[in-house]
Amino acid sequence: MFVKKIVSDGLAHNSYFIGSGSAAAIIDPRRDVEVYFSEARARNMQITHVFETHKNEDYVVGSLEIADRTDARILHGAQVDFAYGTPVHDGDTFRIGTLELGVLETPGHTLESISVTLKETAVSDDVLMVFTGDALFAGDAGRTDFYGKDRQKEMATYLYESITKKLLPLGDGVIVCPAHGAGSVCAAGITDLEHTTIGYEKANNLLLQMSREEFIDYKGSEEHYYPPYFHRMEDWNKDGAPLLHTVPDLACMSPGEVEEAMKQGAQVVDIRAPSSFAGGHIPGSINIPRTLLSAYAGYLAAYDTPIIIIDDFNQNLESVVKYFTRLGYDNIHGCLAPGFSAWFVAGKPLDYVDSWDPAILSGHLGNPSLFIVDVRTIGNREKMGHIDDAHHIFLGHLPDRIDEVPRDAQVLVYCDAGFKGSIGASLFKKAGYEKVANLLGGMRGWTAAGNPVNKE
Amino acid sequence: MFVKKIVSDGLAHNSYFIGSGSAAAIIDPRRDVEVYFSEARARNMQITHVFETHKNEDYVVGSLEIADRTDARILHGAQVDFAYGTPVHDGDTFRIGTLELGVLETPGHTLESISVTLKETAVSDDVLMVFTGDALFAGDAGRTDFYGKDRQKEMATYLYESITKKLLPLGDGVIVCPAHGAGSVCAAGITDLEHTTIGYEKANNLLLQMSREEFIDYKGSEEHYYPPYFHRMEDWNKDGAPLLHTVPDLACMSPGEVEEAMKQGAQVVDIRAPSSFAGGHIPGSINIPRTLLSAYAGYLAAYDTPIIIIDDFNQNLESVVKYFTRLGYDNIHGCLAPGFSAWFVAGKPLDYVDSWDPAILSGHLGNPSLFIVDVRTIGNREKMGHIDDAHHIFLGHLPDRIDEVPRDAQVLVYCDAGFKGSIGASLFKKAGYEKVANLLGGMRGWTAAGNPVNKE
Amino acid sequence: MFVKKIVSDGLAHNSYFIGSGSAAAIIDPRRDVEVYFSEARARNMQITHVFETHKNEDYVVGSLEIADRTDARILHGAQVDFAYGTPVHDGDTFRIGTLELGVLETPGHTLESISVTLKETAVSDDVLMVFTGDALFAGDAGRTDFYGKDRQKEMATYLYESITKKLLPLGDGVIVCPAHGAGSVCAAGITDLEHTTIGYEKANNLLLQMSREEFIDYKGSEEHYYPPYFHRMEDWNKDGAPLLHTVPDLACMSPGEVEEAMKQGAQVVDIRAPSSFAGGHIPGSINIPRTLLSAYAGYLAAYDTPIIIIDDFNQNLESVVKYFTRLGYDNIHGCLAPGFSAWFVAGKPLDYVDSWDPAILSGHLGNPSLFIVDVRTIGNREKMGHIDDAHHIFLGHLPDRIDEVPRDAQVLVYCDAGFKGSIGASLFKKAGYEKVANLLGGMRGWTAAGNPVNKE
Amino acid sequence: MFVKKIVSDGLAHNSYFIGSGSAAAIIDPRRDVEVYFSEARARNMQITHVFETHKNEDYVVGSLEIADRTDARILHGAQVDFAYGTPVHDGDTFRIGTLELGVLETPGHTLESISVTLKETAVSDDVLMVFTGDALFAGDAGRTDFYGKDRQKEMATYLYESITKKLLPLGDGVIVCPAHGAGSVCAAGITDLEHTTIGYEKANNLLLQMSREEFIDYKGSEEHYYPPYFHRMEDWNKDGAPLLHTVPDLACMSPGEVEEAMKQGAQVVDIRAPSSFAGGHIPGSINIPRTLLSAYAGYLAAYDTPIIIIDDFNQNLESVVKYFTRLGYDNIHGCLAPGFSAWFVAGKPLDYVDSWDPAILSGHLGNPSLFIVDVRTIGNREKMGHIDDAHHIFLGHLPDRIDEVPRDAQVLVYCDAGFKGSIGASLFKKAGYEKVANLLGGMRGWTAAGNPVNKE
Repeated sequence: MFVKKIVSDGLAHNSYFIGSGSAAAIIDPRRDVEVYFSEARARNMQITHVFETHKNEDYVVGSLEIADRTDARILHGAQVDFAYGTPVHDGDTFRIGTLELGVLETPGHTLESISVTLKETAVSDDVLMVFTGDALFAGDAGRTDFYGKDRQKEMATYLYESITKKLLPLGDGVIVCPAHGAGSVCAAGITDLEHTTIGYEKANNLLLQMSREEFIDYKGSEEHYYPPYFHRMEDWNKDGAPLLHTVPDLACMSPGEVEEAMKQGAQVVDIRAPSSFAGGHIPGSINIPRTLLSAYAGYLAAYDTPIIIIDDFNQNLESVVKYFTRLGYDNIHGCLAPGFSAWFVAGKPLDYVDSWDPAILSGHLGNPSLFIVDVRTIGNREKMGHIDDAHHIFLGHLPDRIDEVPRDAQVLVYCDAGFKGSIGASLFKKAGYEKVANLLGGMRGWTAAGNPVNKE
Repeated sequence: MFVKKIVSDGLAHNSYFIGSGSAAAIIDPRRDVEVYFSEARARNMQITHVFETHKNEDYVVGSLEIADRTDARILHGAQVDFAYGTPVHDGDTFRIGTLELGVLETPGHTLESISVTLKETAVSDDVLMVFTGDALFAGDAGRTDFYGKDRQKEMATYLYESITKKLLPLGDGVIVCPAHGAGSVCAAGITDLEHTTIGYEKANNLLLQMSREEFIDYKGSEEHYYPPYFHRMEDWNKDGAPLLHTVPDLACMSPGEVEEAMKQGAQVVDIRAPSSFAGGHIPGSINIPRTLLSAYAGYLAAYDTPIIIIDDFNQNLESVVKYFTRLGYDNIHGCLAPGFSAWFVAGKPLDYVDSWDPAILSGHLGNPSLFIVDVRTIGNREKMGHIDDAHHIFLGHLPDRIDEVPRDAQVLVYCDAGFKGSIGASLFKKAGYEKVANLLGGMRGWTAAGNPVNKE
Repeated sequence: MFVKKIVSDGLAHNSYFIGSGSAAAIIDPRRDVEVYFSEARARNMQITHVFETHKNEDYVVGSLEIADRTDARILHGAQVDFAYGTPVHDGDTFRIGTLELGVLETPGHTLESISVTLKETAVSDDVLMVFTGDALFAGDAGRTDFYGKDRQKEMATYLYESITKKLLPLGDGVIVCPAHGAGSVCAAGITDLEHTTIGYEKANNLLLQMSREEFIDYKGSEEHYYPPYFHRMEDWNKDGAPLLHTVPDLACMSPGEVEEAMKQGAQVVDIRAPSSFAGGHIPGSINIPRTLLSAYAGYLAAYDTPIIIIDDFNQNLESVVKYFTRLGYDNIHGCLAPGFSAWFVAGKPLDYVDSWDPAILSGHLGNPSLFIVDVRTIGNREKMGHIDDAHHIFLGHLPDRIDEVPRDAQVLVYCDAGFKGSIGASLFKKAGYEKVANLLGGMRGWTAAGNPVNKE
Repeated sequence: MFVKKIVSDGLAHNSYFIGSGSAAAIIDPRRDVEVYFSEARARNMQITHVFETHKNEDYVVGSLEIADRTDARILHGAQVDFAYGTPVHDGDTFRIGTLELGVLETPGHTLESISVTLKETAVSDDVLMVFTGDALFAGDAGRTDFYGKDRQKEMATYLYESITKKLLPLGDGVIVCPAHGAGSVCAAGITDLEHTTIGYEKANNLLLQMSREEFIDYKGSEEHYYPPYFHRMEDWNKDGAPLLHTVPDLACMSPGEVEEAMKQGAQVVDIRAPSSFAGGHIPGSINIPRTLLSAYAGYLAAYDTPIIIIDDFNQNLESVVKYFTRLGYDNIHGCLAPGFSAWFVAGKPLDYVDSWDPAILSGHLGNPSLFIVDVRTIGNREKMGHIDDAHHIFLGHLPDRIDEVPRDAQVLVYCDAGFKGSIGASLFKKAGYEKVANLLGGMRGWTAAGNPVNKE
């Protein structure tokens, strides 16, 4: 048998390639599917089944993309009326070579969520692995807030039942393969483990130490951010997303073409690092460093006007395009070529953000014109503490709440490390604020440099 | 500037990637176009123009495939009414960065053939390179027989005029970039040069040593084989071939599935080496060693029933699929997985061909039941000589002429090296002949081993 | 954390890349170490520790190769006096980012065998994974015969204690990462699981169902083949193998050069498939199909004369060279270029093996001159049954026992599938036997075709 | 035949892979030789000859690296007493398959310079291509100043004779393959042509329009910069450089380790783009953007203390290490992992450079404390004009001449585009200057934005 976890960085999304003999199944494929075909070719296998553990909200699923190139069957939970594929039910089994994949309905995260058990029948009838989707993670469990506040406790109850009645009874020695790793927006507490097991989770997952009531209470009232792009993902994954075929190529644009496109409404996304954006950028562009595209493009980028990418040296932009297409952004139009320098070599005007290190910020504390904005998640803020007097606006909400910040202030944005702070600073700049700084290092640098932290 | 020749092995087809600044043009792209996008990405260039020097007959052009993913303009000669693209005329020029590409109408191979000149305007107004399509090759010129015997002298006259009035006057120092290298079916005498120039050709191309009359006489009566797939290529290239998007993936089949498919009419193409086919193969399969697919699949494979591939270890089948799709075979269905051994491990019956080395054949000479079939091109036979009493049937014509060979004979097939002989032997086996041998080494091995050669 | 199993095909050897933060450890690296550096580069990690779970017998360890390019520490069991590295003891711990790797002395397979536990201290103090080397496999445990018959029960006792006192108490939920997968020569019963756990093994590993006495009895008397190259591996791994730096390149040889080298004693190893070898090969060459190189080169190839490789199309010979260098064959000299056809195109003499399918063999049964040789392992023979009257000589012993087979017989060699049979047939041919056939499909094809099997 | 130009970016160095049949020659290989072996493997060729057209000054030649892994002969000019290889003379010829490579002694750039002619003997006895080393380039010819002012006219005379008596007589149709393309430090006027010919150069190379006297006068007095690392290259290439075997791996360092190493004298080279360095960098580091490493590391980096690399996201650092090792920097020690952000997340202090766009500079003009430093080559300054009052110090000379700039000035550095300006600004910062700005866009941006240019 062959099982390989295929991670989509940024999304912290796990898909799985499962093969035996000359057959293969994919669990929760992403939209750019070449990686699965490449594995299949290398192993003389053919993809015959695709499982969707649930209608994912955070990325476009690749099931139809695979089915377009094979005869693979698409299988998903029965509690949603998908426009494609085949609904499956508790106890259904499917054969991949000598492997038997079995369906467990495990609602809670969503109503139609399923888990998939794996038995190697050549060895035993015991379950060896279970693919838990967003039901059970290493260190956490799926969020239960997608049906609204009213139903959150109901969903949490389903989840508790699914975990305790369906998953834990599989036995301590069963390997748990969830749909997300640490860093996903689908749960805050996922631990960074390459693999885990039922036994390990029973001993170490805090949720599994709770009583039924505690669990339902906790998960039933947990708060999560909801990026606006989730709507499109849910619709597309239910009805079938447009086929991608190949990852799109970027048009190579000149500074003049970028200027013209911006006049027509194009969005310019600068994927450079915070210091690079600070040291000069195209006025009106926003900064989303490449490592944060999966997490924040869905808050800040629109689907209806072309997106133009700015990088220092246009390195590995193919992966950047993938990040966008995974979120359904098929409006990626081009890049400034051969990189940001094309802009300044053309003598075009620049805008700047001030980079502050902790010492500079210390020097400004007490300055009445200083307005500190903390753009972290509320969870991170509560856990790590904050800088005194920092006004909290979560980065994803900043476009809507930016007017809370006085226009003539010296704005200092910070986050945990300095990257999200730079995104925030770019939003202020784009909104016309003039004195905008970003704290390089964010709360971590601030703390490491020995500055006072408010942990109340 | 950047110019890269991209060779399609087997077809001996040259396409060219031409870039300057952030723009690029492709000349005569093949159907699997990822290679061009890969170059473009690596160099921060965008493909803006595609030139077709003529409606190619030997492969599916990739112009539409590129245009589907970019805004590139497709440009071709005006003397054919293409269903897509823009006709161009003598003197038209196009800008790629600082390069100027210019059109020369150079009919002869076909009526609408064009050549494309390249000037680096940043350096000079002189032509630096010329892309000659099938007008002028290293050591040869394009075939002139596509409009029938009646018009061959007329086409040869056009070709003479194109070469002497349009190409040679460009000057000795101009680099010549033809659409084919040595081994192409588009001309027999192409020499194996990585690059050539007008000056080198003037001195060394035999055709350019001829007078006008000699040239027209020679080219006007030259004989060429015409693989039947050329018809489809001409139609598709004129009207637009179906889009490929991605190179198809092969289904991985079991022996039982292959058997069943064969009953339904599937064609089994065994791409192994001659000795491997000889030492055991699936009854009813034909052998086209992978290195000969481009040259002979177009004679022997049908477009209307599924094709199944057999290899020893299924190595690099992706390139094999490319070979087929370049010839328009979109009916490639699957492969026996994980290789030919799946067949014999399942206890399925085998068929065999006898491999003979020169000594074995020597021992059989004079045997009255021996029937020797020479399947080489007539040109190769005349040049290298033949084995006494060998009956000549060109491999491409063997399916139609196989009845010339008595069914009860000991058939010995040979070619120049032993590969085409194996194809021929497989055709005899498929047709029900029982005693079939292939001369490993063919005429070259025979001669090298010191055996008599009939050169009359 | 990041953990990746890196499999050396053929050897069925598992090494592990373990990373956290910017540090990485390798467990049981193979000799061609570029794969580890490639992972490290991709993840911004530096290899700081190399663990050898034991002095491996079946391949050259890559510890020194890694240490030559880094400051990594090499760690191994204390019960052997290695010429390099640092001995470690029960309870020693090492830090890789937030991971803690701990040493368990687990003798049995060898005296100095260790296992390595992994804790993710960022999550818990529980052991998450254990790297068991050759102590515990999926479905089996390490062989205990390396110190001779006299000490085998003693070693089996150690192994029992190691497994039951050290490994099983780690808990059902601990993931087990052994040094070998199915197909290794280091144990016959390894099951083909991608992952396993203590819990799964406790329930499904037959050895773990035995009592102490049964286990010691069973493992204390188990018989294994011992390929002669193990001697060199043990010496090299103890004293330090010569550094490889880069995988060697093959000289491209002409037929004449191969002939001349053979006269000087060079070994010609033909890595083609059985049917290809059967359909024509260089007289005096031996056939080891590329998929069997790791398993049988160590029986059949010598270290002291140059090795020349023959392939049909010289595809991916770099991996072939790797297979040899992993076994310490630094005498890989060259290959016939561009493939086997160079030989017959030069008109050189050929030798052949007859390929038989089950029907042909059936037709020969009862023929008094027929001498059937079964070259499988005794275990395979006993499990699958055999063909009546087949004389058993394990392939690895055939060179020494070939005289048991009459020189004038019609020899038919068979194995389980037809590959090892071809190796055997090539040895007969090389030894001068004239009538030699190989049963394509071997016992599996024979059985599948419905022929009688002797299972006494 | 197969000829491939292999370009070392940055150095604008061309090496050539020349193959025919199963043999290959390399002309002027670079030190990281895997690229040649990779080509050889892909084509079933063996490298049998290595030509050095001259003892290169600008990079470490890879001849010994190739000879260490093959039996290839190293061939070079006879007028220098190399410690390895074989001297060759006018008229010597060497066989690569059907190709004949011939030696032309073409002194001028250096005394021992040779050119290599290529004939495809299968076609003709005419020369098809000539590898001219540093004798003749597209649009220029080699520099003649390496033996001092005293001998420059003598060398220019040799060069004139070599070009006019040896190279031009080869004929207009001969393809010219020089050792450098546009951007090399070995000549200022090389034009950016992918290919050129004798005929094209005769018509378009300005030097070839000159009379003998004009040529000798011009080349005999031409001025060039001489990077200090040339000394080491000349010595190593004459005596044999240390073998590299594999491109070294970088240690992954923490901020603390970098700090400690800097205290011990380590050099920190920040390879980020100018805006990124400007927006925050490690105090005491110098900025050499990755695209300029080949051109400026040899001026600014020392051979005797460890070098540490800083990048935003540590992308493709393997190529960065190659750039250094090609210049003989075997002291590349490590990188800050996982990128520059590690520094600020640790709360370490930052330093900054001001980025100015043309409008900001305009606003400062006339400010008495403003001191403008132009760090371009004198040639670029003369050609493009300069900003009024700009003090010229060529970047390579800035470390020695930095005291010409007052310590309390507002320093503004500029170059042609903004990258070398950033290098210069980093040198000022490292030297303790406090108010340092770099003009993003440099002279090109300044001019494009419509600002006044002094062209006197």
